[in-house]
Amino acid sequence: MLWSGWGDPAKARELPETVRKLLHDLLGVREPAERAVTLPEVRLASPALPHQVLPDLERAVGAEFVHTDHETRVRHTRGKSTPDLLKMRIGDGSGAPDAVVLPGSHDEVLEVLRVCAAERVAVVPFGGGTSVVGGLAVADRRFVALDLARLDRLEAVDTESMIATFGPGVRAPEAERLLAEHGLTLGHFPQSFEYATLGGFAAARSSGQASAGYGRFDDMVAGLTVATPTGTLDLGRAPKSAAGPDLRQLVLGSEGAFGVITGLRLRVRRIPAEKVYEGWRFATFQEGAAAMRALAQRGPLPTVLRLSDETETMIGLARPEAIGGGDSGCLMIAGYEGDDVEHRRAAAGRVLTELGGVSLGAEPGQAWEHGRYSAPYLRDSLLTVGATVETLETAGFWANLSRLYDAVRLSLLGSLGSPLVMCHISHVYETGASLYFTVVTAQQGDPVEQWDRAKEAVNDAIIEAGGTISHHHGVGRDHRDAYAREIGPLGVEILRAVKERLDPAGILNPGALIP
Amino acid sequence: MLWSGWGDPAKARELPETVRKLLHDLLGVREPAERAVTLPEVRLASPALPHQVLPDLERAVGAEFVHTDHETRVRHTRGKSTPDLLKMRIGDGSGAPDAVVLPGSHDEVLEVLRVCAAERVAVVPFGGGTSVVGGLAVADRRFVALDLARLDRLEAVDTESMIATFGPGVRAPEAERLLAEHGLTLGHFPQSFEYATLGGFAAARSSGQASAGYGRFDDMVAGLTVATPTGTLDLGRAPKSAAGPDLRQLVLGSEGAFGVITGLRLRVRRIPAEKVYEGWRFATFQEGAAAMRALAQRGPLPTVLRLSDETETMIGLARPEAIGGGDSGCLMIAGYEGDDVEHRRAAAGRVLTELGGVSLGAEPGQAWEHGRYSAPYLRDSLLTVGATVETLETAGFWANLSRLYDAVRLSLLGSLGSPLVMCHISHVYETGASLYFTVVTAQQGDPVEQWDRAKEAVNDAIIEAGGTISHHHGVGRDHRDAYAREIGPLGVEILRAVKERLDPAGILNPGALIP
Repeated sequence: MLWSGWGDPAKARELPETVRKLLHDLLGVREPAERAVTLPEVRLASPALPHQVLPDLERAVGAEFVHTDHETRVRHTRGKSTPDLLKMRIGDGSGAPDAVVLPGSHDEVLEVLRVCAAERVAVVPFGGGTSVVGGLAVADRRFVALDLARLDRLEAVDTESMIATFGPGVRAPEAERLLAEHGLTLGHFPQSFEYATLGGFAAARSSGQASAGYGRFDDMVAGLTVATPTGTLDLGRAPKSAAGPDLRQLVLGSEGAFGVITGLRLRVRRIPAEKVYEGWRFATFQEGAAAMRALAQRGPLPTVLRLSDETETMIGLARPEAIGGGDSGCLMIAGYEGDDVEHRRAAAGRVLTELGGVSLGAEPGQAWEHGRYSAPYLRDSLLTVGATVETLETAGFWANLSRLYDAVRLSLLGSLGSPLVMCHISHVYETGASLYFTVVTAQQGDPVEQWDRAKEAVNDAIIEAGGTISHHHGVGRDHRDAYAREIGPLGVEILRAVKERLDPAGILNPGALIP
Repeated sequence: MLWSGWGDPAKARELPETVRKLLHDLLGVREPAERAVTLPEVRLASPALPHQVLPDLERAVGAEFVHTDHETRVRHTRGKSTPDLLKMRIGDGSGAPDAVVLPGSHDEVLEVLRVCAAERVAVVPFGGGTSVVGGLAVADRRFVALDLARLDRLEAVDTESMIATFGPGVRAPEAERLLAEHGLTLGHFPQSFEYATLGGFAAARSSGQASAGYGRFDDMVAGLTVATPTGTLDLGRAPKSAAGPDLRQLVLGSEGAFGVITGLRLRVRRIPAEKVYEGWRFATFQEGAAAMRALAQRGPLPTVLRLSDETETMIGLARPEAIGGGDSGCLMIAGYEGDDVEHRRAAAGRVLTELGGVSLGAEPGQAWEHGRYSAPYLRDSLLTVGATVETLETAGFWANLSRLYDAVRLSLLGSLGSPLVMCHISHVYETGASLYFTVVTAQQGDPVEQWDRAKEAVNDAIIEAGGTISHHHGVGRDHRDAYAREIGPLGVEILRAVKERLDPAGILNPGALIP
């Protein structure tokens, strides 16, 4: 993973001259005057853990798994939001951990928590480091990054129950590789797929590009083991239960504030015999959205279903390989995976045609599939030429969706002058859908401050328009205050009560999730 | 509702002489010596609320909605478990509320909670009064039954989002009637359907006979409004969210211990164009279960799917109209509701045939449909002739299901001599299924003590065999200690922390859910 950007540096691409010209002419984007720093130039505060902590941590996990060197600390600093990257590019290493600790077992995690609780040292669980909502940076406090990379095993496969037991540090591609040996798949493919971990998916209540077909990650969790400063939680004895509140759903989305997920029992599926992705065009976003709603409510629901609005279609962002080459109208991608693809595809196609869709055949679907993990690479290229590009997202019930869409667009246009604002719907349910926005704007002044102001305003707009503050990305620190408004003061008190009971010293990811 | 039994007294039936003879010959059942008491004969303690509480309650909801008369108190005493009914039949009115209060609005609920918290008077929310797990009786403490019958409106229908907003006191048949005016259905049909309320479904995390097709009740809840002693919770801005833990899932199943559900926003569906139920026979329970697992994992899943074991099939309990007239093997009922019934039915039929199923055509399906709410009426008739009949249930992952089945049967056989133990699977998931047991035994000594001993042992057996203590019925007081073992000491601490924050005076349904 590139320390100051996304992904494998070998996959980075320069922007074509035509796109650079477009950015300049359309948005007034200019190349930044200063070059980005190199890794050794990143400024870090001196590690400042209490005297006895490092030796105790070394005793807990082994000396070779406790790191305080410059490079390891930089590589565990913050996540991958655009402000995170912009700060890194200018060498701002605030928010770096004082040490990085890699436990090798659940019991070692418990011991690390014990050591840190005794000395009030904060602990931030670290999976793939891909948070885009400030899930990883602790402000103004010494802390340890608890890197779960060593808990990286597929521990059991139960093909009768179709449940696989994993450690939390398994990255998604490795999980798929390990499962494929058994003919199985998890089917969870968020844009962070290449680097994100299973523990991170659970902690951030992730949704993936094929969640319509395979369910969101929270649907996949049959059981969880959690290490907390006050002991171990082991949840999940049945797919569903009437025995009290579903405490799994309290851990999912808790972002390391309640405990550290050390084991996951996940529902798996057979690798589908067939995968077909295809394109459709609708005249307007509204028409396309109505067609998606019909599929969600009447069926059959494709495995993948996404619809770009007019601007995103025009820019061609749904197909990053063809950026700048979009057509008019709104592009829909519909994908079908399984053993009975043809029946579902034909039935869904009839609904789409009936509701104004025009089939574009397989090519746009293949282009989408080819480019499905490209957007974060593209962001790096845009940042380099002086454009700020960031994503944000929400979800709501169908009847409220166009109000939510308008509110977000208006807010961004109001804050950023004349940015490019693109949107797609990528997740539909019977009762509602998500809205995923991509914003591109010329950097002006301090681009972090510029974005932070816009972000604060758009968070307000989402909450005021009745949406949830996040459908994909989570809460972290960037959505914390908006989230508090979303669940109300009593909702916050519930979270506080749980946190105080499980983590009385308040060491677990302080500042994330709960104000 | 019959105060000492189930349902509309006009629907009660005497057992045929053949069945009475069978009970006598097979189980040694003898008619009890004593007749059941009449309602005025039920012994209640004198109401003993603190002096100022009744006038304050009358101010809160209006004098005409506060009741302390004998009949109203009797009708709000305990629920509908077999021990509940056995106690009522001998006039044991312990566990009766001191008063019954019927609030007319969310704000009135808040005011009742304020009044009761100030005087430490316990409050037990009362919906249909159908709890079979001791959800309603407070031991050794004065309390108010908060009857939600006046919050009985369908407040809004949003056909775009397919969400209906209801008060918690709407009974299920009335909800279906109100929705049918809009061409809609909820699709939630538990055995308690005729009397249970929507608020009760949510508080007890109910599952229904058609949950395979319509989802469990927890799947239907888009939003909840909850009145607590510390204020109002309003949850649910989107179908799904990545914004933190799903607090709706903390309220669902909380059984009135955290707050009173005063409003529900529920996902609804179009009334299906067609409903077809049919029967299949499998040679063994194991073979039938394997076929259900194939449908759950490969699809297509019928809307209703249930499989009786050999004993239940023999007794014919799956078809109460044909009781005693069962055939050999194991009877499966498969039901299909929707617009594309024929395709699903044919595809599922191919899977069932391939896995050893023999089609029995429509007749067993129609018989099941006809008798789907009859079992509680049948129980009354059995109690009258001196048999104890009770149900209990669990769920687990597929790989653990036969162990769980054996553990429950062995426990019941060990505790009760030679009872009749019948079982069916009525809910299947990709990763597991529920097991629902019906036990019939001759009453010996004090039948309540006899059953309590058996129940305690079978709860232990379920927990030791790795199952959940309830998939249908909830926790109440009867499953509380087993539930604590299921979620572990830290799980209990989470619930305690939430309860103490929302209900610092500890007035809400004390003794239910949380030890």
